[in-house]
Amino acid sequence: MATVNEHYLKLKAGYLFPEIGRRVNAFKQKNPGAAIIRMGIGDVTQPLAPAVIEAMHKAVDEMAGTETFKGYDDGGIGYEFLREAIRKNDFSARGADVDLDEIFISDGAKCDTGNIQEIFGLDNLIAVADPVYPVYVDTNVMAGRTGQAADSGHYEGIVYMPATEANGFVPEPPAGHVDIIYLCFPNNPTGSVATRQQLAQWVRYARSQKAIILFDAAYEAYVTDPAIPHSIYEIEGAKDVAIEFRSFSKTAGFTGVRCAFTVIPKSLKAYQKDGTAIDVRPLWARRHCTKFNGVSYITQAGASAVYSSEGKAQIRRTIDLYMANAKLIRETLTQLGYHVYGGANAPYLWLKTPKGISSWGFFDLLLTQIHVVGTPGVGFGPAGEGYFRLTAFARPEHVKEALDRFAQI
Amino acid sequence: MATVNEHYLKLKAGYLFPEIGRRVNAFKQKNPGAAIIRMGIGDVTQPLAPAVIEAMHKAVDEMAGTETFKGYDDGGIGYEFLREAIRKNDFSARGADVDLDEIFISDGAKCDTGNIQEIFGLDNLIAVADPVYPVYVDTNVMAGRTGQAADSGHYEGIVYMPATEANGFVPEPPAGHVDIIYLCFPNNPTGSVATRQQLAQWVRYARSQKAIILFDAAYEAYVTDPAIPHSIYEIEGAKDVAIEFRSFSKTAGFTGVRCAFTVIPKSLKAYQKDGTAIDVRPLWARRHCTKFNGVSYITQAGASAVYSSEGKAQIRRTIDLYMANAKLIRETLTQLGYHVYGGANAPYLWLKTPKGISSWGFFDLLLTQIHVVGTPGVGFGPAGEGYFRLTAFARPEHVKEALDRFAQI
Repeated sequence: MATVNEHYLKLKAGYLFPEIGRRVNAFKQKNPGAAIIRMGIGDVTQPLAPAVIEAMHKAVDEMAGTETFKGYDDGGIGYEFLREAIRKNDFSARGADVDLDEIFISDGAKCDTGNIQEIFGLDNLIAVADPVYPVYVDTNVMAGRTGQAADSGHYEGIVYMPATEANGFVPEPPAGHVDIIYLCFPNNPTGSVATRQQLAQWVRYARSQKAIILFDAAYEAYVTDPAIPHSIYEIEGAKDVAIEFRSFSKTAGFTGVRCAFTVIPKSLKAYQKDGTAIDVRPLWARRHCTKFNGVSYITQAGASAVYSSEGKAQIRRTIDLYMANAKLIRETLTQLGYHVYGGANAPYLWLKTPKGISSWGFFDLLLTQIHVVGTPGVGFGPAGEGYFRLTAFARPEHVKEALDRFAQI
Repeated sequence: MATVNEHYLKLKAGYLFPEIGRRVNAFKQKNPGAAIIRMGIGDVTQPLAPAVIEAMHKAVDEMAGTETFKGYDDGGIGYEFLREAIRKNDFSARGADVDLDEIFISDGAKCDTGNIQEIFGLDNLIAVADPVYPVYVDTNVMAGRTGQAADSGHYEGIVYMPATEANGFVPEPPAGHVDIIYLCFPNNPTGSVATRQQLAQWVRYARSQKAIILFDAAYEAYVTDPAIPHSIYEIEGAKDVAIEFRSFSKTAGFTGVRCAFTVIPKSLKAYQKDGTAIDVRPLWARRHCTKFNGVSYITQAGASAVYSSEGKAQIRRTIDLYMANAKLIRETLTQLGYHVYGGANAPYLWLKTPKGISSWGFFDLLLTQIHVVGTPGVGFGPAGEGYFRLTAFARPEHVKEALDRFAQI
């Protein structure tokens, strides 16, 4: 008989966002007239930049001609025109040298951060922050690196590193040994950022432990403080111990277009059980060309326009708009007496729920009383209980309206 | 220390097509003037249908406006407009009823056929044809369902079902028990098709063994014989035992656009080790929404235009062009004394190499003597030794030129 992967049965109820979707839909069915404002799921609302639109139209036209038609993206790791733009603008320009063949174009950072664990052994001890982007944990549960979930929501066999007010929502390396560490800065969900010194401490830890850092920098475009690194490769020695994930989703509004990339330095090693060092990059290349077939040419053409001078200026204006939202949310809610974190170098705001209400309690309160959808902090892990995430991605007029409603609670 | 997934180290040298690419590039560097004709990798050459181009331009324009912008494809399983078009045209029209929520839109059948094994236990005994599309085998090797490869190329722990001249390249169900069977019809690489009776035999086998059939129908659009099923769901009882994979890559020239879909019927069950029946569809839904984030809206809009009346007529003309290529290759090479199979209901032709030359020997001969690139049959498995795959996807003028060169060997 065909058997299931029983590790899937360990997963707690639906993935966070589908669960939110279900609650919102149930509310809408009962209250069809309610004007719901969504500040929950991290989806963008502003249209694509004109430079991207123009590049995509041009690419669509190329697909209409026999001489300009593009089939498979050879090898599936992405067109050189895009990888070269990334190398130059995202890395060289910040003093972080990355080679073209260390860049793998993909259809999403969620996919890459979810799939990356496949190339590592099941015996690795995984460390994640708590709260954490659920994909890091769930994909390791599915793979069988954990035991069952405790009542707290913590899975047996994972090292959770609390991100709290006390540590500014930036965990320090653990006292003991771990093998693989997921870090996300600017952080989803707390909106915290890691300083150069904090990242250097992590790189030192990984080097000393022969550990690997999986660095999710999907929100780097929202860093406004010039002292904060955008890439972990700005830290000396990081290329020997870190994989970095980037995305066009939030940088350029590509949530519905699907483009991202992952950097695996050639100097990155992992080990066989007998201690033999193995290059990691060829393993990912093998996975990529076996289980993936490249990103739409039209999408890659659009992504490369993000790096044109017009494209850069246009996406900057959109990011500035979102960050003005973030500032307004932070200041208004602070005035209303909330404790608000994040939103300065990240599109996420992390607030303490008032009067000790639970995260889901506050979710239901906002949904039913003021028809605002946010994300319960506890959905990102037990240490998120009593917190709530708001995103700055709504339209400015909706943000203002939502804040007016907050004043009426 | 971070360890690697040592199962990856069992994989034989590069994935077939990158290896071909390497040999071709090496030849090109030494012979920059050679006019190479590619009939190897199954990539299409004809441009997208005008209806698809028009739909994609419209979708790009929608992404430029705040009111029409599309972010995440909610839940990531695909827009209803596309799933409805699929349900109606690909299934209902052929008497195979499939529900909307049984259809999962994805970025490629390679990805889906590669990823599907994740939701099943590692203890399943896998059966594949030999020769076989390498993705089915390699992804099971990566997951740890096999031992090492023997010198023959067969991995320990997989049941290989020879597809030979004797069985018309359509293997019968094995005498013993297996748990999961990969079937691909129209077949890649042999171009064979399974009759209704043969598929019914497979469905009966799967039902009797509580086994699951993974049915890759990526080439169904090339079936010309009205008696041959396009979907396994045309066979009674198949919905309880089969998952079907489809793709727009070959149907509509989407190799560079990336769109496919997988059907998992709600009645399909697999089992826990203790025998408890588990619905398979929710497992794939969980994987999909955890490790994937949907397909580009622009791509989905283009795919849905394939089902418009103009779109249908346009893609039919392109498929007819490729099948005219197939006919010409089959007839010409037969006249030249080759034994040629396939090419009647499939875009692939499977020829016996002349004079007992090995598959790679014939590859090198064609490359160096007549500058034609094909695919060595042995690259698809040991039973493919002595065979060679040609595809019908080249431009007609290139096919004619290649056949003229064949006459000069």
